[in-house]
Amino acid sequence: MAIHPDCLEQLACIVGRSHFSARREDRVCYGYDATAAVHVPDAVVFPESAQQVSRIMKLATAFRTPVIPRGGGSGMTGGALAVNGGIVIVFSRMNRIVEIDRENLVARMQPGVITAHFQRHVKRHGLFYPPDPSSAAFSTMGGNLAECAGGPKAVKYGVTRDYVLGLEAVLPTGEIVKTGVRTAKGVVGYDLTRLIVGSEGTLALITEATVKLLALPESVMTLTAAFARMETAARAVSEIIRSHVVPRTVEFMDNASIRLAEGYLRVGLPVDAGALLIMEVDGRRAEIAGLVRSLKNLSRKLGAVSVTVAETDEQAQQLWQARKAISPALFKLAPHKINEDIVVPRSRVPDLVAKIDELRRRTGLTMVAFGHAGDGNIHFNIMLDKSDKTALEMANRAVETLFDTTLALGGTISGEHGVGVTKAPYLPKEVGDDAMSLMKRIKKAFDPLGLLNPGKIFPESLEMGWGESSKRCPGETGAG
Amino acid sequence: MAIHPDCLEQLACIVGRSHFSARREDRVCYGYDATAAVHVPDAVVFPESAQQVSRIMKLATAFRTPVIPRGGGSGMTGGALAVNGGIVIVFSRMNRIVEIDRENLVARMQPGVITAHFQRHVKRHGLFYPPDPSSAAFSTMGGNLAECAGGPKAVKYGVTRDYVLGLEAVLPTGEIVKTGVRTAKGVVGYDLTRLIVGSEGTLALITEATVKLLALPESVMTLTAAFARMETAARAVSEIIRSHVVPRTVEFMDNASIRLAEGYLRVGLPVDAGALLIMEVDGRRAEIAGLVRSLKNLSRKLGAVSVTVAETDEQAQQLWQARKAISPALFKLAPHKINEDIVVPRSRVPDLVAKIDELRRRTGLTMVAFGHAGDGNIHFNIMLDKSDKTALEMANRAVETLFDTTLALGGTISGEHGVGVTKAPYLPKEVGDDAMSLMKRIKKAFDPLGLLNPGKIFPESLEMGWGESSKRCPGETGAG
Repeated sequence: MAIHPDCLEQLACIVGRSHFSARREDRVCYGYDATAAVHVPDAVVFPESAQQVSRIMKLATAFRTPVIPRGGGSGMTGGALAVNGGIVIVFSRMNRIVEIDRENLVARMQPGVITAHFQRHVKRHGLFYPPDPSSAAFSTMGGNLAECAGGPKAVKYGVTRDYVLGLEAVLPTGEIVKTGVRTAKGVVGYDLTRLIVGSEGTLALITEATVKLLALPESVMTLTAAFARMETAARAVSEIIRSHVVPRTVEFMDNASIRLAEGYLRVGLPVDAGALLIMEVDGRRAEIAGLVRSLKNLSRKLGAVSVTVAETDEQAQQLWQARKAISPALFKLAPHKINEDIVVPRSRVPDLVAKIDELRRRTGLTMVAFGHAGDGNIHFNIMLDKSDKTALEMANRAVETLFDTTLALGGTISGEHGVGVTKAPYLPKEVGDDAMSLMKRIKKAFDPLGLLNPGKIFPESLEMGWGESSKRCPGETGAG
Repeated sequence: MAIHPDCLEQLACIVGRSHFSARREDRVCYGYDATAAVHVPDAVVFPESAQQVSRIMKLATAFRTPVIPRGGGSGMTGGALAVNGGIVIVFSRMNRIVEIDRENLVARMQPGVITAHFQRHVKRHGLFYPPDPSSAAFSTMGGNLAECAGGPKAVKYGVTRDYVLGLEAVLPTGEIVKTGVRTAKGVVGYDLTRLIVGSEGTLALITEATVKLLALPESVMTLTAAFARMETAARAVSEIIRSHVVPRTVEFMDNASIRLAEGYLRVGLPVDAGALLIMEVDGRRAEIAGLVRSLKNLSRKLGAVSVTVAETDEQAQQLWQARKAISPALFKLAPHKINEDIVVPRSRVPDLVAKIDELRRRTGLTMVAFGHAGDGNIHFNIMLDKSDKTALEMANRAVETLFDTTLALGGTISGEHGVGVTKAPYLPKEVGDDAMSLMKRIKKAFDPLGLLNPGKIFPESLEMGWGESSKRCPGETGAG
């Protein structure tokens, strides 16, 4: 054990012995996330309050030990991995919905609350929390805030940062700060709230969040529109969003995704279509039929070869099943996959898909593109068996080419997953050297010793202040 | 002249002699804003590009001279005042709308574009930029971004930070950086965009902004609802916003404001009403009548004693005239006024108004409250003749009491105007010492010498690097 025994002893005192572990069998459980890399931490703690988190940070500072905050461990870029060892803070005990203020449409919750649980809870009050990452059933609000999660409803409703009003957070140096407001407006001092949101747990540990809520829409309806060509579908999406019926989701599947989902599900998807759009519209009960009719007519006018409206909840479920079947179908096809969440301006989606087609032809690799067409957020997947070194190398080169294409099209290399470890090498390409330096100075302003979630976002290490306690036992830590 | 002659000479070289002035008659023109304080700068420059702004910052760094960015000079808290002398950068020549991308609903513009001009321009393309401060006719997009401007439409559409996607900005050290994206989603690195937005020109000089646009609503209708008591009106506002017809604006006038506007306009306002709500609803042409009907019925059900729907554009104008008459009526009543834009959770507006009533009775000062009820953003005004020292002192104490009440009600001392100079003494009360220290460290990460817009936000001076060139000529600078 490389972490100092005194540090371990004091950690146990802070959170209580039953909420602490340095046993390998426990630590291994918190060494994973959705990237399939493994980095076993030196200790795992389960604090119950901001005060405990603060004491942990002060202790970590004294022992120069890295601290890694962890929500549901469902991150796609390694944000929760203990890449330099250290103490993993798991927020599962801080999972209380503290307040639902129905009069002011505001809620407060602790970071360990599961997102879908929170959504269901506010729904029972007739309220609506729109951000909806596909991990919602197991990711936490804390993780969603740290990554600035999005999801399909962003087309109409925006992303996590559009809903967070204020935070309670523990700084790497141990101070507990409150940021932001609990009102719709507030312009007092720097926007620490939105600086911490999306900072991937590198600037502060969120211990409570205040978010705004909306009234739950009275009605939701689902329809699909099949297009012969990707270009036509993309142009239709732009036109639809510029119309006065903005759907709350506009998901798309390319031909490869359609075939894949159909092969897996056999629900009669149009396997010859170049692209399939799945749209959700919400609104007042009195108007929903008119909205759907407008959208149906508009889709036809814009070149859809077929439009299907789900007449029942069951039919809607079936349409969504097709979209959701892509991921499991992909896993069935290949044991490993690369999944990148690039974003381009909506109108450039056809260019991006054309590039993917070209790469598919050139490499012979299985590639599919699907995702959130409404905001140009494409989930690009390459199927492979990572033990096939040649394929892996080709895939990595293809990803790099696609990132370059994305940037050239005016896009960004991550719409939802963040930078973490996996995208860190590509970050300077997008933001430039001067903005990189500025971000590092901001990191230092929060975390002078570089102890909070080190090794994330910044491709090279910052000047870190780790002591010997961060040294890892051989064989315990490493990319898996 | 305290500024170094070599510095002046080089400034003239950077922007060209005709876009530079150190003559007193020119400098005086840029020493004012809406606070009525006067601080005459040492020089005024009118750059035409980010490159010129960058060279000015490098020059200012070499001569340790403060630089103050200035938009329309309509700020309410002194953000554009040269409180320590220095160089005022006026962005009036950088006033180009660079791009309107109708397919992706994105626009790019330079900071000197007048907000209302930008709104009208996008409207001609069938598009909509919702943030709408009451200064829109003369304030600039750069100023709106720096202050994170709001306005009445924030109820439904949010504020400036909800529309900005990315920036080009010059750092105090002269680097030109690009932040953010031009897509709806993007989570790559720290959110520099929203950190700079609302930083009141203390972190960076915005030289170009990319904002998102919406489709222009097909229809807008206006209605008013009079309530006997403020409490009933406030409860109605909460209920209305929780309903499925969210108005885009919910403005309110207290009894004092109603009487004032009626005395000035004579349009038949209900002078016995405890509160008047003015609401705007927008939506699809096919549905607008239904929305207005719902809102009308709901208002009645929630206790409105009368509801008036504007049947023509002219009638709507007249209703808005009443709301807009308050400010000129106030100026007519008293040569000076204190105008504070406090915010409390919607449901606490009656408590705040009750406190104002109490203060009015206790001090005998004329006080009115009106503003954006939909987001609890109250413009609280005290009328006074500032030469009356006793009244001024009482007024300042009343403001402090009201700030305390605002914070105790879970509110914030500024929803739109920012901190600037005038609210700086109250900032630590709201954000706390630890967050204050963090904000100062962030300021240093951007501006190690403290040269960009010094004396704003932070009540005490930071450790500044000003050289002798910041010394002011006696009598030239001082609060007026």
